[in-house]
Amino acid sequence: MAEPVLLAVDWGTTSVRASAVGADGTVLDSASASEGILTVGTEPAAYAQTLTRLAGSWAESRPAVIACGMVGSAKGWHEVPYLPAPVPLTAGEVPLTQVAGPWGPVHLVPGVSTDGGVMRGEETQLLGLALAGHATGPAVLPGTHTKWALLADGALTDFHTAMTGELFALLSTHGTIAQVVGDVAPSEADWSAFEAGVQRGLAGAGLGAAALVFGVRARALLEKMPPEQAREELSGILIGAEIAGACHWLGHTPARLPVVASAALAERYRRALAAAGIVADIADGGVTTRGLIHLARTAGLGEGVT
Amino acid sequence: MAEPVLLAVDWGTTSVRASAVGADGTVLDSASASEGILTVGTEPAAYAQTLTRLAGSWAESRPAVIACGMVGSAKGWHEVPYLPAPVPLTAGEVPLTQVAGPWGPVHLVPGVSTDGGVMRGEETQLLGLALAGHATGPAVLPGTHTKWALLADGALTDFHTAMTGELFALLSTHGTIAQVVGDVAPSEADWSAFEAGVQRGLAGAGLGAAALVFGVRARALLEKMPPEQAREELSGILIGAEIAGACHWLGHTPARLPVVASAALAERYRRALAAAGIVADIADGGVTTRGLIHLARTAGLGEGVT
Repeated sequence: MAEPVLLAVDWGTTSVRASAVGADGTVLDSASASEGILTVGTEPAAYAQTLTRLAGSWAESRPAVIACGMVGSAKGWHEVPYLPAPVPLTAGEVPLTQVAGPWGPVHLVPGVSTDGGVMRGEETQLLGLALAGHATGPAVLPGTHTKWALLADGALTDFHTAMTGELFALLSTHGTIAQVVGDVAPSEADWSAFEAGVQRGLAGAGLGAAALVFGVRARALLEKMPPEQAREELSGILIGAEIAGACHWLGHTPARLPVVASAALAERYRRALAAAGIVADIADGGVTTRGLIHLARTAGLGEGVT
Repeated sequence: MAEPVLLAVDWGTTSVRASAVGADGTVLDSASASEGILTVGTEPAAYAQTLTRLAGSWAESRPAVIACGMVGSAKGWHEVPYLPAPVPLTAGEVPLTQVAGPWGPVHLVPGVSTDGGVMRGEETQLLGLALAGHATGPAVLPGTHTKWALLADGALTDFHTAMTGELFALLSTHGTIAQVVGDVAPSEADWSAFEAGVQRGLAGAGLGAAALVFGVRARALLEKMPPEQAREELSGILIGAEIAGACHWLGHTPARLPVVASAALAERYRRALAAAGIVADIADGGVTTRGLIHLARTAGLGEGVT
């Protein structure tokens, strides 16, 4: 294997992923671990140690290191101030913050804030998306805190957050909805129950999530809906209501929409967006690394990375 | 004290309250305990024992017993089928279900269901409200699962449930919002933060609760909003969004609205409704007992109860 000149690290709340990038800009290899910031804690030395383990033999060539995500939060390696939107992702130079790493400085990417929202990591995914051709228009980044972002000529102009994934986790783990949805996810999704939930979420968004969600409990009690179906319906309701709310925020329903997510979550959003009349363009898995390589190159890191 | 001829029992999820009613229909005394159905469990004998303790010397006159609330659910004393709405609360005779009590039968009041909702206990509060003069129009019954009900000539025609109280409890106890709102309620409400939340909830309801709620976290991070303020803002946002959703459900914004709740919760709703331009008519605390006495009299229980 060619020697890496850059390590591109996506360091989130629950996991960390590093890609070794060669002098010609190709990804040579990658590795991931479940050592997100919740696991590593707030001690800088612990981050340096985790990075050393993750890098393994890649460290021998002392590659430049760039990292995005929650690693730059107050509960991560070192707090990096948010850049207030709008941020020219592709045009400008993003200020990176240096911390002392195990074989040289580690460069942390700042998150982005608006009046009502914060993001860390998604800005780099959006940069990767813009570099792949989606430089203008809305995009959705599903997850624990799903982001709906607006791009214009490669700039991140605004975004909107729906904590759909967290609400689903809270409701399906605690409280009265948890009693009817069961505690084990089905091995295969029941798309019929999910899509029924999406329709309820899209149609009933005006009632508010606190009302929509209660319907799952009522139907489970009245119609003896089995737990796995109730679980899928809950997921559909929350995603459907999120889409309705996001289109309200956008001011229109887009015809197409890029989706940046893991394969399973992307499929869930693809189906829910289709019910709302929106074609999903599922982004490939490399957007974050592509964004990190661009940021590193712009900052002059990793000599030879093109 | 005159001898009670009727025990009117409001037996809910977390507490139970019994009122001793004399032959002339006046409430002689009342007692409450934290032995709701979650505590008592599902064993019928445990309900009979709890009732005996709660009644104390009142049992000596062997009063008739009527009980409403979750005591009639599958997780209570005995499951009583729901009556499908519309239900003529003041005009018809409501079918009561007898179970064997410690000194004679106990009569359980059925809950009410619609296509998308269930209630147990609130139907009796609404009956009491109707008897007190609010026989037509909407009413709100705030709580863990807040009910918005529609009455017409003393009939319960439809209702809508928002699990606002449960969402507040889940969000303020678990997950990322819990990290910024603190785990102790302030001794006095910060009405300014609460009302700011109400305005956000009313104005942003179209965005969906999953988006509105995330804003609390963002502002706590960006503006260093203190935990007690964030807690009040969260409460305001959820209640504001509930009011907006309920008015969407009603199809209009009522000028006045009866509110049936404990004093602290009623004050919270009074302020939030005022922000939406609605005058709250706070019901007195006796609506449930008044409803139970009416049901008992209609069923011929408690000889002499007028």
